[in-house]
Amino acid sequence: MKVLWILAHPEPRSLNGALRDEGLHTLKELGHEVRESDLYAMRWNPVVDAADFGHDPARRLVVGAASERAHAQGRLSDDIAAEQDKLAWADTLVVQFPLWWFGMPAILKGWFDRVLVQGFAFGLTGERGQVRRYGDGGLAGKRALVITTAGARRSGLGPRGVHGDLEDVLFPLLHGTLWYTGVAVVPPLLIPSADRHTPAGHPAVLAELRERLRDLPTTPAIGYRHEHGGDYGTDLVLAPHLAPGRHGLDVHRTDRGGPPTSPSR
Amino acid sequence: MKVLWILAHPEPRSLNGALRDEGLHTLKELGHEVRESDLYAMRWNPVVDAADFGHDPARRLVVGAASERAHAQGRLSDDIAAEQDKLAWADTLVVQFPLWWFGMPAILKGWFDRVLVQGFAFGLTGERGQVRRYGDGGLAGKRALVITTAGARRSGLGPRGVHGDLEDVLFPLLHGTLWYTGVAVVPPLLIPSADRHTPAGHPAVLAELRERLRDLPTTPAIGYRHEHGGDYGTDLVLAPHLAPGRHGLDVHRTDRGGPPTSPSR
Repeated sequence: MKVLWILAHPEPRSLNGALRDEGLHTLKELGHEVRESDLYAMRWNPVVDAADFGHDPARRLVVGAASERAHAQGRLSDDIAAEQDKLAWADTLVVQFPLWWFGMPAILKGWFDRVLVQGFAFGLTGERGQVRRYGDGGLAGKRALVITTAGARRSGLGPRGVHGDLEDVLFPLLHGTLWYTGVAVVPPLLIPSADRHTPAGHPAVLAELRERLRDLPTTPAIGYRHEHGGDYGTDLVLAPHLAPGRHGLDVHRTDRGGPPTSPSR
Repeated sequence: MKVLWILAHPEPRSLNGALRDEGLHTLKELGHEVRESDLYAMRWNPVVDAADFGHDPARRLVVGAASERAHAQGRLSDDIAAEQDKLAWADTLVVQFPLWWFGMPAILKGWFDRVLVQGFAFGLTGERGQVRRYGDGGLAGKRALVITTAGARRSGLGPRGVHGDLEDVLFPLLHGTLWYTGVAVVPPLLIPSADRHTPAGHPAVLAELRERLRDLPTTPAIGYRHEHGGDYGTDLVLAPHLAPGRHGLDVHRTDRGGPPTSPSR
């Protein structure tokens, strides 16, 4: 694999730092190639603004159009272009972060906001004139593993846990960002009760991480539906015969919400 | 009402800018008091780091503990303290943003990351020794309206739409952040197909906004369950007799997942 490892944590001497170190070491030991985006170490700027696109601030900024134009003309700011080069190189992404307010730390959210611009990651048109999206897109063919540490207990992030099921809570990232741009995502690795973690507990967690990384090339991805597989109508609503009468985010998964209408590609 | 209006958009000459201007004008006209956090205009820093807490960078940073200590000792950085003062003043929050990657722009995510620190918004203990959370907390008694513009069509963000139902997609904000800290949230206001919006279409959208703001004091909140109302076990899992056999984020709502076990407060 060619792995891009993206980490968002302010403290290298943390559990997250230990996980990253172990992860990179394990991948290299297994013979994989690794590149890294340690966002805090890079002092990554997460805020989309006109300067990203060389946009004249006197004119109204329309983010989608300005970013697409700047990408097409090679005028995106250097820090964005450098991350896009890493993404283009990688076949596998590892996205690691502490779960803050049930989502990504801002520095990481802003990596996606700034790097996945229109014309690069999405907004591309396929051979049949369709918009390439959900299972297809600028990042098609890549795979991703999300690793997150949480203060919460595992049961609280389970299917009926008070915080919501982790895969539902992460739906905007797993489905709305990664799958949207064509990336197949394997089930996330949760490290719960992270605040109560002591170095004495690290070996068990690090062993689980090593196992997930070793198995990553063959781990089945979450079965999100393809947009153009026949499961959705032109209104983008799931066909009534699929997961009939049900709603909730699971209906968009063939492994929980029923099989697809037809082979998806 | 005393309203804190939080906006995250880089372009004041946008649909979002028009919505904000109209919203503030309407609220004042109705006799409400208004304060504003225009995050782009403020050049808000969204990245949590040691400097927020006056933390010695030579020592390991544990974000939760360091932020709680700094808050208790009045040592949080000035920009965070100023936002906390606005929050303490307000009884109502309006949180307005364009939906980027099915979530908040990084600059807004980092407002929550930095401002809602332990000991201020959460991590407080109630009279019975319980952790005040989900329907209770440092922001208890306040109400919030989330306003979001999206490139997507309305049907795609509906109950069986390909993007996921908007209230599920926003669950980390509505439930995991606002309700978690005690804020009651009314159904969000979605402005769909925002990329196709022209100034000619503004009047209809602005009228809808005015109506939502006029009705806000009496709009029923989403019926999220209280953590300590008897609906959850000590493992934080929903009791089996509630929404039996079901999962998905709706089970945490008394208006969709069945009534609560007992009066929640």
